[in-house]
Amino acid sequence: MLKAFCFILNFKTRVLPTVTPGYLRPLIPDSAPEKPDNWTDVMSDIERVIMPGVTHWHSPKFHAYFPTANSYPAIVADMLSGAIACIGFTWIASPACTELEVVMLDWLGKMLDLPSEFLASSGGKGGGVIQGTASEATLVALLGAKAKTMQRIKMEQPELSDDVIVSKLVAYCSEQAHSSVERAGLLGGVHMRKVKADSSHKLRGEALEDAIKKDLAAGLIPFYVVATLGTTSTCAFDRLDEIGPVGNRYKVWVHVDAAYAGSAFICPEYRYLMKGIELAESFNFNPHKWMLVNFDCSAMWLKDPNWVVDAFNVDPLYLKHDQQGSAPDYRHWQIPLGRRFRALKLWFVLRLYGVENLQTHIQRHIGFAKDFEKLCMADSRFEIFTEVQMGLVCFRLKGTNEVNESLLKKINGRGNIHLVPSKIGDTFFLRMAVCSRFTKSEDMQYSWEEVSKSADEVLSA
Amino acid sequence: MLKAFCFILNFKTRVLPTVTPGYLRPLIPDSAPEKPDNWTDVMSDIERVIMPGVTHWHSPKFHAYFPTANSYPAIVADMLSGAIACIGFTWIASPACTELEVVMLDWLGKMLDLPSEFLASSGGKGGGVIQGTASEATLVALLGAKAKTMQRIKMEQPELSDDVIVSKLVAYCSEQAHSSVERAGLLGGVHMRKVKADSSHKLRGEALEDAIKKDLAAGLIPFYVVATLGTTSTCAFDRLDEIGPVGNRYKVWVHVDAAYAGSAFICPEYRYLMKGIELAESFNFNPHKWMLVNFDCSAMWLKDPNWVVDAFNVDPLYLKHDQQGSAPDYRHWQIPLGRRFRALKLWFVLRLYGVENLQTHIQRHIGFAKDFEKLCMADSRFEIFTEVQMGLVCFRLKGTNEVNESLLKKINGRGNIHLVPSKIGDTFFLRMAVCSRFTKSEDMQYSWEEVSKSADEVLSA
Repeated sequence: MLKAFCFILNFKTRVLPTVTPGYLRPLIPDSAPEKPDNWTDVMSDIERVIMPGVTHWHSPKFHAYFPTANSYPAIVADMLSGAIACIGFTWIASPACTELEVVMLDWLGKMLDLPSEFLASSGGKGGGVIQGTASEATLVALLGAKAKTMQRIKMEQPELSDDVIVSKLVAYCSEQAHSSVERAGLLGGVHMRKVKADSSHKLRGEALEDAIKKDLAAGLIPFYVVATLGTTSTCAFDRLDEIGPVGNRYKVWVHVDAAYAGSAFICPEYRYLMKGIELAESFNFNPHKWMLVNFDCSAMWLKDPNWVVDAFNVDPLYLKHDQQGSAPDYRHWQIPLGRRFRALKLWFVLRLYGVENLQTHIQRHIGFAKDFEKLCMADSRFEIFTEVQMGLVCFRLKGTNEVNESLLKKINGRGNIHLVPSKIGDTFFLRMAVCSRFTKSEDMQYSWEEVSKSADEVLSA
Repeated sequence: MLKAFCFILNFKTRVLPTVTPGYLRPLIPDSAPEKPDNWTDVMSDIERVIMPGVTHWHSPKFHAYFPTANSYPAIVADMLSGAIACIGFTWIASPACTELEVVMLDWLGKMLDLPSEFLASSGGKGGGVIQGTASEATLVALLGAKAKTMQRIKMEQPELSDDVIVSKLVAYCSEQAHSSVERAGLLGGVHMRKVKADSSHKLRGEALEDAIKKDLAAGLIPFYVVATLGTTSTCAFDRLDEIGPVGNRYKVWVHVDAAYAGSAFICPEYRYLMKGIELAESFNFNPHKWMLVNFDCSAMWLKDPNWVVDAFNVDPLYLKHDQQGSAPDYRHWQIPLGRRFRALKLWFVLRLYGVENLQTHIQRHIGFAKDFEKLCMADSRFEIFTEVQMGLVCFRLKGTNEVNESLLKKINGRGNIHLVPSKIGDTFFLRMAVCSRFTKSEDMQYSWEEVSKSADEVLSA
């Protein structure tokens, strides 16, 4: 067992595996064994079959996407969750599962200094919930907003049928919002309008208001806007301080997607980036990205969860219980019915790191990004694509997209570090995300050298 | 650590906790600590704070809902998954994660003797995927069916707008289908028609066809039917052999929800209950219920996943990779974007139990239900509500609903065993589900005695 954990954390290998599609099937039998295999064989197959095909997300050499979290406290808590193995769909199905989640979302909300309206401890309607992913949070909020707007429009215009109202609903997001936001529109069956961001890739209040006005003039019904704090492409922060007032003015539900960057709000110095949060209806970020809680743990707060709860409240006798109403039944807050005891890993991480160490973790990553930015700027062949925010550096070789595409191919082909690209407008660039909790200064130096050597090769070719 | 696992499995306590809503908040601080707590305190708080509020789903005295699975191989595999901690949204994001899932769903499909069209190993379009829950599988299939039908209708009647087509779509399920099926209709924004079941609580082909014909005559568009194999209330099996041909005749996508009972199809003697499976478009069951794989692991197969994949394919540059098309990118098969390495626990359970031991596990549970049925029938105060299927016995005291409600209250109030009720038509009854992998004959005897003693008290009052 210990051996298995050791080679998982052996980051001396390539960060990207060299296997090709279909590699695994020939390595194992083509059907399950009739009689049990033995433990030794199974464990050694982790090394033989699995590890050669693993992309090492926790290597300091992994800089793709955004981080995914991992820590011993979270893994131990997940073991306990696996052993208790309750399904917390209602309060009575395992009271501790629901109650710890309520209190942990309060702890976490306080760490971010969220307005008290979002917290269960305020005694109002608000409260938090653990979703699986930010994609689900975006969809849940959209469905809540849809239900709320349907009710309002039916009061105002009782002659309209449900189908007609739905066909007129319009949601908004920045053109820079994550692909899952567009997907939430598809899943929810409503129009999702992508609004042009400003030259810093941020959604501004004025652009949103123009879009809303145009839609209102066309007889449509604006109902939902997603403000992204920390976009995937460049970690741009939409101007929530402008979007909030516009949303409120037009009765448009403001949902904040801070999937990656939200963890930084545990540091007071970054909270200016969520100015306007008091005007949002719902807020979401992923402790499973940057706050050392293993996937899945996506924290979501709602000022009035009843819009979500009532929209999908299907209540069969076999799920009823005597305490309904005096504690949340989280099954009404989410897409799936079943749910694991995920609050345990949040509790373990918050207690066993303490707020200070979590702040330090965030600050170190941001510092590493600044270091990399400096290395990049000191090399005249390179340019920084856009303001460096959080643990992400967007950079490129001065020159064509083609040369930058070659650079990326070269870097990933060498396999020592791993990056993914993005493109805004016509400009292709590389993203260097600081991802690992094991990262040290010398790792950033190493990653820079890989980039630099790859550039040598590309430019000399 | 070991101590923690020991008290988790201490089933001498009440199966239902005695805590009341709000019990937990006063037991812990009202915010996260600034500096780390120590491990010993955290682990001992499991016993002090958590265990008093846990409902013991794995106690042999737990008979509510349906089982949720739990085993050492699954927990160990989850630890490895927690340590590897990759996010398998695309093939390149961790090839092993995708590839093991493809092969495990083939292994599992073969164990159930699913038609080869569902298996990736057949070389056709079909294949399997691990969803979080059956609720999500029902929704994913509904959205695939919606996309498929939209395309067909737009070809046949190009004058119809999307909004008009959506407003005419009708899905079908038995009135006995799980609440999550009705909810899938709400989430997907389509009408879900509940069709009356027969006197054995099964959806029949004729009733479905009548409903479809009526809707067609009214200008509506039937597009999706959910056949439940093993309903939650009574474990009734819809007549898939009749529903399949009707669905195919009217171009209605047939989805099979065998969430609980599907595990029994690993035993050849129960496969007659899924007769007609070759006519379904999609099939789903939960190894995390009855096949010893910890939650979440909901296995779903699709004959043609492209309907789902293409319906929600949003493909930003940062998620593209060179191998696209030569292996599945599972992010397109599901609602969330992120996904854990869940195939590991399926692999571990299949190998470390072997097919024979898993079959024995199913057969033992079915045997225990038969034992309980006999005990019940031998007591003239009781009656069996409907045919006993799988590990579920639906029973009641002869007499009024009120006396049965009192009986349930008495049983759960004593707290030694835990049951939930259901109601069909006007008849309230109790459900005795065999849930624990630790259950022995004497446990069923104990549970019967609890029921019998409670009946003594209720009837003498």
